[in-house]
Amino acid sequence: MLKLGDYQLQSRLMLGTGKYRNAEEQEAAVKASGTEVLTFAVRRIDLETADQDVFAGLDLDQYQMLPNTAGAATAEEAVRTAELARAAGLCDMVKVEVIGCSRTLMPDPVETLKASEQLLEKGFTVLAYTSDDIVLAKRLEAIGCHAVMPAASPIGSGLGILNPYNLKIITEELSCPIIVDAGLGGAADVCQAMELGADGVLLNSAVAGAEDPAKMAEAVRKACEAGRAGYEAGRIAKSASASASSPSAGMSRRS
Amino acid sequence: MLKLGDYQLQSRLMLGTGKYRNAEEQEAAVKASGTEVLTFAVRRIDLETADQDVFAGLDLDQYQMLPNTAGAATAEEAVRTAELARAAGLCDMVKVEVIGCSRTLMPDPVETLKASEQLLEKGFTVLAYTSDDIVLAKRLEAIGCHAVMPAASPIGSGLGILNPYNLKIITEELSCPIIVDAGLGGAADVCQAMELGADGVLLNSAVAGAEDPAKMAEAVRKACEAGRAGYEAGRIAKSASASASSPSAGMSRRS
Amino acid sequence: MLKLGDYQLQSRLMLGTGKYRNAEEQEAAVKASGTEVLTFAVRRIDLETADQDVFAGLDLDQYQMLPNTAGAATAEEAVRTAELARAAGLCDMVKVEVIGCSRTLMPDPVETLKASEQLLEKGFTVLAYTSDDIVLAKRLEAIGCHAVMPAASPIGSGLGILNPYNLKIITEELSCPIIVDAGLGGAADVCQAMELGADGVLLNSAVAGAEDPAKMAEAVRKACEAGRAGYEAGRIAKSASASASSPSAGMSRRS
Amino acid sequence: MLKLGDYQLQSRLMLGTGKYRNAEEQEAAVKASGTEVLTFAVRRIDLETADQDVFAGLDLDQYQMLPNTAGAATAEEAVRTAELARAAGLCDMVKVEVIGCSRTLMPDPVETLKASEQLLEKGFTVLAYTSDDIVLAKRLEAIGCHAVMPAASPIGSGLGILNPYNLKIITEELSCPIIVDAGLGGAADVCQAMELGADGVLLNSAVAGAEDPAKMAEAVRKACEAGRAGYEAGRIAKSASASASSPSAGMSRRS
Repeated sequence: MLKLGDYQLQSRLMLGTGKYRNAEEQEAAVKASGTEVLTFAVRRIDLETADQDVFAGLDLDQYQMLPNTAGAATAEEAVRTAELARAAGLCDMVKVEVIGCSRTLMPDPVETLKASEQLLEKGFTVLAYTSDDIVLAKRLEAIGCHAVMPAASPIGSGLGILNPYNLKIITEELSCPIIVDAGLGGAADVCQAMELGADGVLLNSAVAGAEDPAKMAEAVRKACEAGRAGYEAGRIAKSASASASSPSAGMSRRS
Repeated sequence: MLKLGDYQLQSRLMLGTGKYRNAEEQEAAVKASGTEVLTFAVRRIDLETADQDVFAGLDLDQYQMLPNTAGAATAEEAVRTAELARAAGLCDMVKVEVIGCSRTLMPDPVETLKASEQLLEKGFTVLAYTSDDIVLAKRLEAIGCHAVMPAASPIGSGLGILNPYNLKIITEELSCPIIVDAGLGGAADVCQAMELGADGVLLNSAVAGAEDPAKMAEAVRKACEAGRAGYEAGRIAKSASASASSPSAGMSRRS
Repeated sequence: MLKLGDYQLQSRLMLGTGKYRNAEEQEAAVKASGTEVLTFAVRRIDLETADQDVFAGLDLDQYQMLPNTAGAATAEEAVRTAELARAAGLCDMVKVEVIGCSRTLMPDPVETLKASEQLLEKGFTVLAYTSDDIVLAKRLEAIGCHAVMPAASPIGSGLGILNPYNLKIITEELSCPIIVDAGLGGAADVCQAMELGADGVLLNSAVAGAEDPAKMAEAVRKACEAGRAGYEAGRIAKSASASASSPSAGMSRRS
Repeated sequence: MLKLGDYQLQSRLMLGTGKYRNAEEQEAAVKASGTEVLTFAVRRIDLETADQDVFAGLDLDQYQMLPNTAGAATAEEAVRTAELARAAGLCDMVKVEVIGCSRTLMPDPVETLKASEQLLEKGFTVLAYTSDDIVLAKRLEAIGCHAVMPAASPIGSGLGILNPYNLKIITEELSCPIIVDAGLGGAADVCQAMELGADGVLLNSAVAGAEDPAKMAEAVRKACEAGRAGYEAGRIAKSASASASSPSAGMSRRS
């Protein structure tokens, strides 16, 4: 079970909304993914109307909403966006996303720290989107973030985990939940993230942009479970040399 | 469904036997894996007795046996080993394994080709263990092998797929089933192999040597299904640049 | 030529001091490297005496000294260390190093930014040691740092460039000199860093810890020049498919 | 010094001819590279005339010619091509190249072995182009090849060394010279190949296709020397953890 503040989740997979070719594909993918959390950009939705395009076809009572502050370039903008979402009754859980580079859409460490700190003071459940900088991740945990969300690679790139070493260090050094976010391109990337010790993953483009989004949603659901089970099962160490799979010495017999 | 000659399999995961700490762990792992095929070295079993240590605790009627010729250094030895196995009523399907390097336990291309050719002539269903040399793989297919089994990395090393490029080329260029064999270390490696287009995987050390073999067996079962589904779903292309997951342009509404 | 504030250097290789097995090896390596810049931890030297162990055998008039603030865990400590070094007449150029993780010895982004800002105000020539976080690198440039020094991997690890993608983005997006620091393990790593567009490299363990430090110093000197020339020469693009080196169509003849 | 049969070479860099934009660029690049060996496809030149387009502007007395059998798809074709070259007085040294895959242009193991064996019997100095299959490489050495030339990646791809593990095993397990051929894209790839223990490299597209071929030739010349020196100097081991470059314990003083 994944705990994010007071929220408890069975599924370790979070899914983005709004990049699908149409509402049917989104609905099918969301269902196949088994996700309990739907993320979306607050900026993209009309906070005053009930029937949002971005959620077309989804029964929102079945999901935990996770608004994000995409579009914010400063802590101030991110905080304002989060407060608008809470005021509209969406959620008091928020993914803090403050972009600092228009080319890579990677987050700004200083503004992310500032926004997270302010939102924590205001009582939000804060999930902070960040790079894979280990010290930054530690600082986000230290100020009380409920989860740290390191990017695997730039948003939407599908490049997968560019630096597995850093990601592994983060999962080992931090105690709070680690949700790998951004850049995961498919099932193998999801499985690797979980095997490295992540507590969850967040996907959007990988599912929405697949040829068959529902099928891909099923794939990443299983990959997420597989990676988690593999992590818990304790994999063998890597060895530079071979070791015969069919040894000459025997196995102990059942007594 | 995976077809190997006349054999039809639902599961795309094959499991080795004989490296487990004890028979109970082996039994639990085999069951959790959902495999239908058990592989073993003919040299390790006593062909005259019914109750084999190597299969202790397993109901062999439920599985397809896949004897391998591990221990053979020449085509002649491999062929003799396969014939002994068939004569003992084990199976007419065989994994041809002719080792050419004592350090890496990598297969000998010349003897593997020769042994495969002879066994095909003798009516065996032949699965050929090979390196990831694309031309060698094509030759093995050309002589009629029922499956080609490229090594991800040296047997038992857990190094995973050292050369994903070669593996992808092999899955694209060949029409016969490709079973990735040797070197896979855990769930993420299995998922990657399947996502690259492999038709199946064969594992032994990764499961038998895990801290919790039954849990790892469950992990690789799901990883195999996840990778296959991911392959079929058609993953997004990798892109050197970022692409906003929360685009400003909207999604088409359900009509 | 590499310009760092008012300092102009012909060599793009900077060398650390103090990890050599003995003074003779250090002297031979420094000479073979062709470096013009020697870096050292201010904390390790006795600021009151002339003949320092750490520089034993070196004619210090021939080198530019680059004191670093290793050992500092806060901006305050780093600033104090830099001021002590300047007061002792060592140099007004400083490598800002504020460690934020005892396991990886990776730098603290917040304290590094703060220390750099204060030292710039005090008139220092500031080279900032940082992770490969692109937004952090941009911020360090924006406050006026004379060079940004992203880590290839943890200090002394020899793991090389863990994330070539990030390093390339940093060299492309920033205008100030980029000196790759920490983790480079040998000639190939140095050559890769320079080919990716770095303006220089800083090494210590890779040379001091080599079996033959002087020979390794020669190797990394050439690798640095090779990588720079390769960068300037404009390498071919990577292609997923082969292209015959011996084409059938001819080359235009000299007219 | 690199020994190939009776041939002794100071430079460990071999250069292809015939892909340059014009003869001037080729001449400048060949000179800047410091190479002593020029390779070319026998099929591309007119064996009856003295002044060959492919060598326009080069003083051929200064170079060792290395004809290759590119274009051959069988051992028979390769042998015939080599004999034509020798009869024309070009050279009794030959690079055996028998392609087995039109997409990757990777060599055919069976025909390469056969052609090499026949040419060795006919007294040629044989350099065999092959994949990075360790057992195949051992077999080529065992029949007496004067050098084994494993491909880094497909010809002209610039993908660099796809499988450094295999390449390292080959350099460690074989005693004959290993010349890395095909796929190297620039200075960093060359440096890595040499650091892994290769005795030489062969390049064509990487130099001929660079924006500034002469500059790239200089880059790869230095990279080749750097990698070799780095290999001889004995690089530090890779370590998963950091190790302070500025240790608190001192260095032993000169006695």
